[in-house]
Amino acid sequence: MKIIKYKIVIIGAGNVASQLSSALKQSKHNIVQIYSKHTSSAGRLAKSLNCSFTNNPLEIVNDSDLYIIAVNDDAVTEVVQQLRLKDKIVVHTSGSVEMNILNPSSKNYGVFYPLQTFSKNNKIDFKTIPICIEASNASVLKTLQLIAESISNNVQKINSEQRKTIHLSAVFACNFSNHLYSIALDILASADLSFDILKPLIEETAKKIKNNPPGEMQTGPAARNDKKTMNNHLKMLSDNKDYQQLYKLMSKSICDFIKEKK
Amino acid sequence: MKIIKYKIVIIGAGNVASQLSSALKQSKHNIVQIYSKHTSSAGRLAKSLNCSFTNNPLEIVNDSDLYIIAVNDDAVTEVVQQLRLKDKIVVHTSGSVEMNILNPSSKNYGVFYPLQTFSKNNKIDFKTIPICIEASNASVLKTLQLIAESISNNVQKINSEQRKTIHLSAVFACNFSNHLYSIALDILASADLSFDILKPLIEETAKKIKNNPPGEMQTGPAARNDKKTMNNHLKMLSDNKDYQQLYKLMSKSICDFIKEKK
Repeated sequence: MKIIKYKIVIIGAGNVASQLSSALKQSKHNIVQIYSKHTSSAGRLAKSLNCSFTNNPLEIVNDSDLYIIAVNDDAVTEVVQQLRLKDKIVVHTSGSVEMNILNPSSKNYGVFYPLQTFSKNNKIDFKTIPICIEASNASVLKTLQLIAESISNNVQKINSEQRKTIHLSAVFACNFSNHLYSIALDILASADLSFDILKPLIEETAKKIKNNPPGEMQTGPAARNDKKTMNNHLKMLSDNKDYQQLYKLMSKSICDFIKEKK
Repeated sequence: MKIIKYKIVIIGAGNVASQLSSALKQSKHNIVQIYSKHTSSAGRLAKSLNCSFTNNPLEIVNDSDLYIIAVNDDAVTEVVQQLRLKDKIVVHTSGSVEMNILNPSSKNYGVFYPLQTFSKNNKIDFKTIPICIEASNASVLKTLQLIAESISNNVQKINSEQRKTIHLSAVFACNFSNHLYSIALDILASADLSFDILKPLIEETAKKIKNNPPGEMQTGPAARNDKKTMNNHLKMLSDNKDYQQLYKLMSKSICDFIKEKK
């Protein structure tokens, strides 16, 4: 398949902007400019991509094919106010922001939402990342699809309503799970134990739901309704009321889930 | 290294018993008998290991080197009452049960706790699983170490107090995370969306803490204190008060964690 090369401006210089622009460049697209309020981040990212950068919205070039807004959800509206791009394609990368918010910036707009967790110092392989696309019209959708498919094998057409649901589910599965890892680390550290001992378990827990529904893989004291162990755990958590409350709520939710399943 | 082959009786026929006995057999130990109250499970497991089985505690052979009790935590005490093995080594495989509970069954006892989540139909590679061992005396500890090292490269001497802490942390990192995956699936299913879309994200979330502390990898609305998105999510969850409460509590805990870190 012949891949069309697009001229792309990246708006934002954080984790998503960095990793997405790097993947696009690898697929031979032409990243022409980085815009960010934060000059130093913009400069760093532009240097790594060998392109220009600016912190002045008036200096954003107006002859690119695609403008990707990869900034914090709260900042999207603000950025949109500064863009007047007529018929150029403008997209944002957010799971929770409405597509129509982009309307003032161009008559051709859409969403390009890579469903992944992006952190500094953690290089991502885009090939397996689901990219959720949505567009203001069929022609834009086609272009977004071509670009998304040039970096990922998992491109899906997802409307705004569906995207919000996916984002909410991702908060539970990813953000909240990661915080549970932090709590586990904290509990271990308070007894001078290394978090390393949990790593194979965490990896396996995430791996086994690839081929099995998580509900059928549930193990642990709450799944067996083992009240003695749960009470002991609550006692061990008596110094931390937040962890204790979380333990109670999660365990109750697991017990309810197992009961319903039966 | 020459591996000594031990004669082993397995007490229990559930997930841990099955996977552990299979790993021990693979390392050329001699599994001589399965005991379980549940005749059919005992029979099935014995057949796969090509050994004898019984559901009568009086028929448990008394000339083996090691007796591994791999039953539910609550059932360990009951099983111990039925064992009188003098100086044979008796161990349990539980994260939360005291070692000394085994005292009546033999003067040589200990713990052999594989820190992993065992489910049906999900074959585990023991090589990377931490096995936490503890023993009533140095000689038993040495034997347990030899046996553990014959199936795993990650054997650790862990006392009962430490083991309880590790088990508690594992409930957060593994059991609770898995339940969050179930909730995510439920949220997606209620909008007719497939859980598949989340799988790369779940895998990456677990993978990235291998080389980075989870606290530094935290992403999502709560980590950015993005109140607008959090309020939208709470509205979306208004039909399910349990999920809503869990969302609030987890988000608050993440916000507090990020504040403390700063």
